[in-house]
This record gives sequence, C-alpha cells and structure tokens, in this order.
Amino acid sequence: MLDALFKPASVAIIGASTKELSIGNRIIKNLQDFGYQGPIYPINPKADEVRGIKAYGNICDVPGEIDLAHIVIPNKYVPFAIDDCGKKNVKTVIINTAGFKEIGGKGAELEELVVNKAREHGIRVFGPNCQGIINTDPGIRAYCNFTFTKPEAGGISIVAQSGGVGEVINQRFSELGVGIRMYASNGNACDISIPEILQYWGRDDETRVIVLYVESIADPSKFMEVAREVAAKKPVLGMKAGRTEEGAKAASSHTGGLARMEITTELMFKKTGIIIFRDEEELCQAAAAFATQPIPRGKSVGMITNTGGPAIIATDELIEAGLKIPKLSVRAKAILTDQLYSAASINNPIDVLATANAGHFRAAMDVLMEEETIDSLYINFVTPFFVDNESIAHEIVEVNLLGKKPIVCNLMTDKRQWVGTLRILKEGNVPCYAFPETAARALVALTRYGEIRAREVGEVHIFEDVDMSLALEIIRSKKESGYISQADVNGLLDSYGIPVAPWSLVDNADEAMKAAEKIGYPVVVKVDSEEIVHKSDVGGVAVNIKEESTLRLTLNEMSDKFSSLRYKFFIQKFLSSGKEVIVGAKKEEGLGHLIMAGTGGVLVELLKDASFGIAPLTGAEAAEMLASLKLYPILSGFRGQAGVDIGKLIEIIQRVSMMVTELPSIVEMDLNPIFAFEEGRQPIVVDARIKI
Amino acid sequence: MLDALFKPASVAIIGASTKELSIGNRIIKNLQDFGYQGPIYPINPKADEVRGIKAYGNICDVPGEIDLAHIVIPNKYVPFAIDDCGKKNVKTVIINTAGFKEIGGKGAELEELVVNKAREHGIRVFGPNCQGIINTDPGIRAYCNFTFTKPEAGGISIVAQSGGVGEVINQRFSELGVGIRMYASNGNACDISIPEILQYWGRDDETRVIVLYVESIADPSKFMEVAREVAAKKPVLGMKAGRTEEGAKAASSHTGGLARMEITTELMFKKTGIIIFRDEEELCQAAAAFATQPIPRGKSVGMITNTGGPAIIATDELIEAGLKIPKLSVRAKAILTDQLYSAASINNPIDVLATANAGHFRAAMDVLMEEETIDSLYINFVTPFFVDNESIAHEIVEVNLLGKKPIVCNLMTDKRQWVGTLRILKEGNVPCYAFPETAARALVALTRYGEIRAREVGEVHIFEDVDMSLALEIIRSKKESGYISQADVNGLLDSYGIPVAPWSLVDNADEAMKAAEKIGYPVVVKVDSEEIVHKSDVGGVAVNIKEESTLRLTLNEMSDKFSSLRYKFFIQKFLSSGKEVIVGAKKEEGLGHLIMAGTGGVLVELLKDASFGIAPLTGAEAAEMLASLKLYPILSGFRGQAGVDIGKLIEIIQRVSMMVTELPSIVEMDLNPIFAFEEGRQPIVVDARIKI
Repeated sequence: MLDALFKPASVAIIGASTKELSIGNRIIKNLQDFGYQGPIYPINPKADEVRGIKAYGNICDVPGEIDLAHIVIPNKYVPFAIDDCGKKNVKTVIINTAGFKEIGGKGAELEELVVNKAREHGIRVFGPNCQGIINTDPGIRAYCNFTFTKPEAGGISIVAQSGGVGEVINQRFSELGVGIRMYASNGNACDISIPEILQYWGRDDETRVIVLYVESIADPSKFMEVAREVAAKKPVLGMKAGRTEEGAKAASSHTGGLARMEITTELMFKKTGIIIFRDEEELCQAAAAFATQPIPRGKSVGMITNTGGPAIIATDELIEAGLKIPKLSVRAKAILTDQLYSAASINNPIDVLATANAGHFRAAMDVLMEEETIDSLYINFVTPFFVDNESIAHEIVEVNLLGKKPIVCNLMTDKRQWVGTLRILKEGNVPCYAFPETAARALVALTRYGEIRAREVGEVHIFEDVDMSLALEIIRSKKESGYISQADVNGLLDSYGIPVAPWSLVDNADEAMKAAEKIGYPVVVKVDSEEIVHKSDVGGVAVNIKEESTLRLTLNEMSDKFSSLRYKFFIQKFLSSGKEVIVGAKKEEGLGHLIMAGTGGVLVELLKDASFGIAPLTGAEAAEMLASLKLYPILSGFRGQAGVDIGKLIEIIQRVSMMVTELPSIVEMDLNPIFAFEEGRQPIVVDARIKI
Repeated sequence: MLDALFKPASVAIIGASTKELSIGNRIIKNLQDFGYQGPIYPINPKADEVRGIKAYGNICDVPGEIDLAHIVIPNKYVPFAIDDCGKKNVKTVIINTAGFKEIGGKGAELEELVVNKAREHGIRVFGPNCQGIINTDPGIRAYCNFTFTKPEAGGISIVAQSGGVGEVINQRFSELGVGIRMYASNGNACDISIPEILQYWGRDDETRVIVLYVESIADPSKFMEVAREVAAKKPVLGMKAGRTEEGAKAASSHTGGLARMEITTELMFKKTGIIIFRDEEELCQAAAAFATQPIPRGKSVGMITNTGGPAIIATDELIEAGLKIPKLSVRAKAILTDQLYSAASINNPIDVLATANAGHFRAAMDVLMEEETIDSLYINFVTPFFVDNESIAHEIVEVNLLGKKPIVCNLMTDKRQWVGTLRILKEGNVPCYAFPETAARALVALTRYGEIRAREVGEVHIFEDVDMSLALEIIRSKKESGYISQADVNGLLDSYGIPVAPWSLVDNADEAMKAAEKIGYPVVVKVDSEEIVHKSDVGGVAVNIKEESTLRLTLNEMSDKFSSLRYKFFIQKFLSSGKEVIVGAKKEEGLGHLIMAGTGGVLVELLKDASFGIAPLTGAEAAEMLASLKLYPILSGFRGQAGVDIGKLIEIIQRVSMMVTELPSIVEMDLNPIFAFEEGRQPIVVDARIKI
C-alpha cells in the first residue's frame, strides 16, 4: 500500500532550506500553497524555522510520527539520512537528490547502499533523482514535488518516468482546464515502481483514468501482470518514448534506465489492454474525454454540426481511423425533418445550420441518443453571435449528464468572449476541443478502448498431443548453447506437433538411399554435423533431388568431402510450392518470448511485413497477428485467388508459443519458410533453426 | 488588384440593421470595434442611424465614394442591390447572403444573374454565401466580416474556402498569440477566386506566410500557375479536406463546390511547392514558426535541452520525419566542456541540465550557430523556479534576432506564473510550443519548405524523335471516342518513341505466319476488331505460341470463330521475363493529365503501390515518382539482387507525359505491364490500352 506516499499524514523535509530558490524551500512552499492538510516538519540543523514553520535539527527530534520524508541533501549524505529515518520509523522517503544510478559507477553503488539500508529499516523509497508526487484530494492536498504547476482536482492520475514529460502533461491538463487526481514521477525507481503505482491507482475509486509515460520497463512480467489487472478496470493511456535508435540513446543517457530499440513496450501495452499513444497532445486530449465520458459500444458516430468545413475534416479523421458515420433511420429523419430548419441537412452529419437554436441541437441529440445504430456523438459547435449559445450549451450538458452515449464537442469559439458558454460546458463535463481533428481523435480513442474491452482474447490453448518430455530430453542432451542440429530441430518440432516435411536422420549413404525411397522423391539432403555451422556454404546441402541416381551421386560427393568429420545424413521431402510464411520466436529477458509472424519470400524484408506478439498467445491473438500483415490478403485470398488454410497457420503459431513457453531455454527459433496450402491441407515447415 | 476589397477606403452595408443580433448590425460593430480607419455607410431605408452612424435609404444617396459594399439582404433582392451598386460605382461587393449555388437550382440561377449584372457594372464580387475579409494593417483595420474573433496583427494571411475552418484557424492563432495580416473566406467564390487572392498576397510584402484551406479547386490550371509563382516567393501552407469518400460527400453538400475523391489537390500542392498539411493544429503551429524564422539550409538539427524526457520525444519525432541530429565537432565539444556544467551532456542533444543559467544556454546556442553541420536549433526550455528564466529567455531572443539559423522552442512552463519569460520570448519572435512533438513538427515543416525551395525540378524535356504528325493522323482517323485498336495503340506508342515489343498487323492467317517468322517465336496473337471489346473473354487472344504449327492451329480456330466479323490479326513478340512496371495517364478536366507509375504484378493492387504526378513532368519529377514507390527497391536493386534500368523507365514516363500533353484527346492510357530489364537494356511495353 502506498498510502504513506500518496496520502501522507505528515511530511518532513530533510534538507529544508531558508533560501527561496532551493528545492528544500520550494517543496515546503508548494505544500503550503497547495493547502496540505497535515503537519510539515522542516529538518535543518542551522535554522529555527523555515517559511514560518518550526524546524528541527534532526528528524528524530520531531515530536509527531512521520509518514513521508523528502530527502534533498547532497547524494553522499543520503544513506545517513536513511538511517535517521529508520530510527524515526518514517514509512516512506522521496529522494529528490540526483547523483545515483543515472551517473553510473559510484552513483549506482550509492543507490544500492540506499536501497539496502532502506530495506533493513523497512522504509519504502521513491526515487532517487525524481520529482515526487501530487495528490489533489481535498482531504490531503499533498504537493510533495518541487515543480510549479498546480493542477485542478479531477479524475486523471499521471505516472511518468521522466519528470520533464510528466510536468508537460500536467501543464497541458492545467491549460486545458482538465483536473487531475494524483501525479507521480519516480525517476530512477529504485524501490517503488510504476507497476506498484498502477496497482494502487487501480484500486483508487477517484482515479477514473490513468496516464502512463515510460521510457523503459524494468520488470516486464510484473508490469504486464499489473497492467492487465488495472486496464480491465479503467482506461490506461500509455506512451513510450525512445522509438527511434537516436531517441532510445537519448533515453538511456538520462534516467539510468535502458530504453530498448524495440517494439516490446508497445506489445506489452497492447497485450494488457493499455491504449497506445505516440503523441502527448493527443493523449491529453483523449484523457479529457475518458475522464467524463462513457465508453462507446461500437464504431458508429452520429455527427451534429452547425458549420460545414469542420464536419468534413472530422469525417475524414473518423473514417480514416476506421469509424463509421452510418445513415439514419427513416424514423429519425422524419423527426429531424419535423424539428429542424427546412434547409438543414438531415443526413448524418446532421447540419442544423449556423442559425440553429438550443431546441434544434436538442432535437438532433435526442434523435441520435435514441438511434439504435449510433454509439457516440460528435458535435461541431461554432458560437455565432446571433444565437443563444448558452442555451445550446445547457442542452448539450443536459444530454451529456444522462450519460447514455459518449459525447465530444468541437467548440469553435473565442474563449475570451464566450466565457459563459465555455463555463457551462466545462461544469457539465462536456469534453471540448478547439479543432475537429482533435475532437475526432479523442472519440477514436474512446472507441478503441471500447473495442479493447470487448475483445475476446480467449484462453491459451494447451495442445494435449505435445510430448514435452521428449522435447526436454532433446534439450537436456545439449551441452553447449547455440544452434542445434537439424535432426534435433525436427525432433523438437515433431514433439510439439508442428508439421515438418517427412525426414530421416541416417548414418550413411546406403541408409540415406533407403530413407529417400521411403519418403519419396524429390528430396533434400543435408550433411548434419555439429562441426559445420553454415552447411550450404561448404556444399553440404542439395535440394530438389528428383531420382535415385542423382541422390547416389550427391551422397558420394558429400561423403568424400566431409570424410574427415563426424556427420550424419539428413534426408527430407523436398516441397516446391505453397505460399511462404515465417514464424519465429525470440527470448526477451524478464518477459518471456516474442513471437513473430510474417509473410515469407523476398518481399517480407522489403516491406517489413511482420507482426509480433508476446507468448503465451491465444488463438485470437495469433489470428490478429496474421490479419495485421500487409500481405494478409495473399494468405486469405483476394481478387479471386484462393487463400490458404489460416486456421492451421494459427495453430502452428499457438504451438510455437506453447513450445517456447514450456522450453524457456530456447532463445531463438525460426520456421522459415513454412509452406501454406489451400483450405484443409496441412501447412508444412520447410526449414527451421533453433538456438538454445 | 484587390485593394478595394482588402484596403477599402470606405465601406457600405446594404442591409444595415438596428437589431443587435443581426449580421447587418454585427458587421458595423466589428468595423467599429476593430478600429476601421475609413467611413462606414449603413444602408437602411427605415432608420436614420445604425450604431450611432448616419444611415442612408439607398446606396446612391451616400455622399462619398464607396470602395466596398456588404450585401446582407435576402437573396432574391441581391440582383437589385447590385444594380444600385453599379449606379454608385461601387468597386467591390461582399455578398454575405446565402441561398445561391450551394442550394442548387434556383439558387444557382440567381448566382449567375448576380455575376452577369456585376460584370456589366464592372463590380467585383466576393462570395456569395461567405464571411468576408479582415485586414489588420494599422492604416486599414478592416473587419468586413460577421464573425467574432479579433486577431492580433502579424505576418500570416489566411484564405479558407470554408468560413468555419477559416474561423477555427483564426481562433487558434489568436489563442496562441500569433498575429495575422489578412483573412479571407469567399464561400461560393462566384467571381473573386482563391488564386486571385493568393496572387494579391504574393505581392503583399507584409504577408510573410500564406495559409490556404480548400475543399475543391474550380480552375486547376489557373490555381497552379498562381500557386507556383507565389510559393516560390513565400511559404504557402496548404490543407485540403474531403480526403475520404465520406468527407468529400460532406464537402460537396455544403459549399456548392464539388470535392473530388482524389489526390489531385495534394498533387497540385506538391507540384507548385505548397507545403501540405493534414491537420489544422499542426498547420497553425508551423505557420507560427514560418512567420518569424529563416528557412533551414538543410536537415541537421542541433538540440539544446534542460530536461531529459522531452528531448527523447523530440528526437523520435525529428528522426522519424527524416531529419538528422548529427554529432558535434571536436571544437564544439571542447567549448561546451569548458563552458557548461561538468555533468552536462555535450553530445547532440546538448543537455545543459535543469540548473543551467543564461550563460550556459548562450554558450550552447553560440556553438550550434557556429557549427557548420547544423542547420537549425531545437530548444527544450523548462522553467525551473531555481534559475533566472527571464535571463535565459533574453539570451534566446538575442540569438534569435540575429536570424542566422531558425530556432524553435519547446517552452515547458505554467503560462500563468512565468508571464515575464513568456512575454520576452514572444516579443523576441521566438516560436514557442507546449510539447516537444509540436515544436519538432514545426521545425520539420520549415525544413521541408527549405527542401522544396532547393529542389531542382528541371525543365520538361522535349524528345526530338517524336513524330507528332503521325500520332495526330491516327487520332484524327478515329470517328468515335472509346478504346482504340491495338494497332493504333502501338502506332501511337511508336510515334512517341515508347518501345513496344515488335508487332505487326496483318489481314489474314497466311500473312500472320509470315509476320511471326519475321518477329521470331514465341509470339502472341490477338484478333483485332473494333467489334470486339473484350478479346480474351471470347478466345481472341493466345499467348506464348512457341512454334509454327501451334500458331497455324490457333489462327485457324480464330478464323473460324470470328468469320462473321471484320477483323485483322495482331501478332507480337511474346516476352516472358522482366520486372513489371505500370505507367498510366488519365485526363482531369481543367488540369490536364495525371500520370501514374506503379510496380506491376499482383501486389500493386494489394499494396496500392502507385504514385502520381501532373503532366507535363520533368525527369526529376518522374524519378521522384518511381523513387516513392514502396517496392522501388525491387527496381533499384536490393539485397544483392540487380535492379533495372531506372533511367530508361524515367524516359518512358516523360514520353508518356509529352504524349498526353500534346494529344489532349487521350482521356486514359495504360501501359501495363512494361517489362523492365537490367541496366542498359530497353524496357518494353508488353500490353497497352488507350482511350480517346
């Protein structure tokens, strides 16, 4: 429980200062200005008081109990302060001071010392090298932070690994007049972690929406476990920076974390149901809608406008994002014809005209609220001087407060002139935007979350025919890490029911001839030896051997060439057709395995046509991975061309997922290519590599 | 010249009203409030005065001359008002009244009547169904518009087909504290057109930047002619709505224009050098930078930051847009090491640290201004309470006013607290943003314009070997419009030097045998008859005929089958290899021809891998079309695979461009596929269709 951090009954500041422009003074000022409800204890051996509050020479001299202590003294003294806090039974410390893991070497050692000491004393640590927290709860009013933007109270809680980004988001909400609930930026995060904070807010009823900014994730499995739990309860809006190599470098140089140049974080967001953003402004604007609006049941938007152009822009934005603007029912149109101006457009978008009054807006809203096919409302509201805009605002608020379907409003106005209209909409919890695109994107985000909530991910399927013990035997027989032999690869695939072309591993040329006879021509022959890494480079592979005589010749040649090595012959059925698919897996420390699926052939690399997921995958997740490929229509069939058996490909992905999950010593595997065939025919792995 | 419109020496309002909430009153109020410098003449037969200004019963009663008259009376009276204006020698009218072309039928007729009358009287018409204009020039202060947002004076001029969108943009600039120069929203645009306004502003020295919003373009060639001229002089930031089918429908239902579901407008923007935007906010934010900053010479950004996270986000944004953040020189690093805090990061981004003072910022800026490899500066400036932020702002301003390289500043602050800092930066013309993404995108737009200005489009090449007279002869021989015969297609291609596989058109089977002998096997044979549209559907095409006997058989079959028709045999060399490319052309009324290039084969359609340009194309434009294809690496060569002769493909595109330009009766042509081969070998058109 993080109550001592977010709802401290008392706060001490170790390093309280009488100097106005110091952090040890500012934190006290912030607590005072924000109306902190508990006692504040400045700790300063040289001053009797700080900012009019009695100061103490040592934290142990403080008469009352201390929930939370800020530590703002130079880094090398921090361990001593922790000891003092231990003596005083301080529950939690926020170490604002920098000079720890983020500077490496000695700093990292110092941080470890601090963590160990705190653990001994049973003290929780927030930071170091961090801003702190804010809680706007009227009973708390904790501004335990040295920044300067004082948020309004509201339902959004923000956690940001970077204080700079957290503060920018805080500022933007403040500028937009959108209230927040709690705020946390935990810098190096040596103890109290982002997952822990997420979990805490997941259980905080006043937190309606969580905004999350990360640069790297220290403990991926813990993060995923918590994120899944929290995102199922309330919307979590996530953003990850450091997408480009340059950005990731910049990230690792500043927080002491290590941003990986990978899509892994966004995959974690996706799998756990976090809504992904790549733009702070868009995130903030969406959060404002999430804070007050219900979640749409579907993709169909009803649009009301009193001006033309912005409706076009909003339409473009909604349609491009995959939303729909369906036609209205005959009944709806009849009501609108009856109640709107005759020149009004009673299609969707409903153009009530610039001269529309409150009654017109209300009629249009009521129709859309009743309309079965409509899931959400988008309103363009320009405030002409010749109508009573405040009445229109009141009607929008009244409909909004019924909470039947979500509403976003593109309010086109001069905020300095239409103060009343603006206030009515704000107090009525109508999310208002300054541009059609912005309002539309907020609605798109609401809709996306609705889809995420509604998605049926299903259970991870356990294939009963898997022979895990055989597979374990193969793996345990390996003494070294590295790529395993072709026979072992096929053995592993066989044991997990992943279909490979018929094959046989034999000791010599004669047996190879027999094996080929049994498998049937054409065949592939490969020299299988752990002493040869790149078989094909040294002439150890021959494909498409169509007849006995050729095979005999090939085997003789290879026997001569590799006579000095220990080897066997690997014989496999040669397949020449089928649509190429790639499935792969890669271990990610702390996370498990990433699974990759792609369309095969030369174009894959060119088009980067691959999708990823985190194991274990359900059938629905595997299906979505395939469906998101650019060249998916080649698999599913298009323009009269037959597709392949998608269901059987999905099963292969699921089996690969099960295999790497049960056999974590697999660090990498590639099934490339898999040949996929028409409906009903089993896809077959043609070539595969596994690294353990 | 539009001086009477934008710089009216006097304004009359026909339909001036004493009712506060009428447009005929509001326009007068706006003129008064905005400080209009000329006389205002309310025209109202029933009132002695309107808003304290003497009113006249008829415009002819006005004693002085009238440059500009607003007409706000009901639509059916407008033609009479035009007659009155004619008598009074009014130079220009703004018809705010609606009920013209946008309602179709009678409205369109009324508009035509108005235009004709105005032309007779020599009156220029702005509108109808429009807002009007604004001019912030201190000597003019014309707010000839019924909207309500009063802009600050500045260097940006805005023209928007949609008044709603124009007003939103105006509002946003106002909110951002960015000044504008002139504003125009001309609704139905029956006379004074957007190109005319662009041209006028092109010659207005105080207009530094033009913002353009269109839904459709009435006269594409005129638009392109003007846009090219203006965009070469100053930045034009363009946005087009109605990109999706739904959006285009919404557009056509509201302005009386017709938005086409095509990329044509953006192609026009591109060809003429207009910077394309798809988001109003991004456009406004970029315009703010264009209004004060020089244009970067190149793509390399120097970044200064006093906080970590936002630098990562900005880096992601800049790198993804193709900009560079190069390493600094040894000399630069030495200076920075000397002048910044020891913990500062002297790489690019330069992290001066949150504790950095004005001197540190100045040192970093000076280094980047001196650095040869740096073209522009991005500054992250968070305003910690413990440093002197106003001094930092002063230094930024000082460097900015030198105008050496463009600067954008992501100012992370609470605007209510750091009022002084904000004011210094604004008065010092530093474009400030609230998010790293926003600042980065503005810098990206500046850089794009720099590239546009620097691009070498070259001249349209005239191929001397073209036999236009032969081509004209073929076209003139056609009596009907529609697809022309294969022989004529090949004749046209031959005459324009577009290489086709050797072919021959013969009267009968015997001649066909001889022709095949001459061309060499394998061949294709097609029945060529204007009576058959879809040859292949009726068995009129046979490909890859490898020998005499097969051809004889095929010819006999076809002869039997089509004995009742008039036909010839078309014999052509059959080509089986080569990389497939498509080139096409399509006539666009009022614009000329669009030229299309795409990679061929089944994937083109799936990937929508085609690019477009407007004829006539230069070689550089044709090259860029090819280079922008997703599968371009297949043509240029990748992963060790040889590419094809790109230069010869470019020439084919140029020849097609020349052909359709010289032969405007071609409405559509498709060269599909063209087989392209290795360097030095001529690509060959394998199949082609031309419609005239």
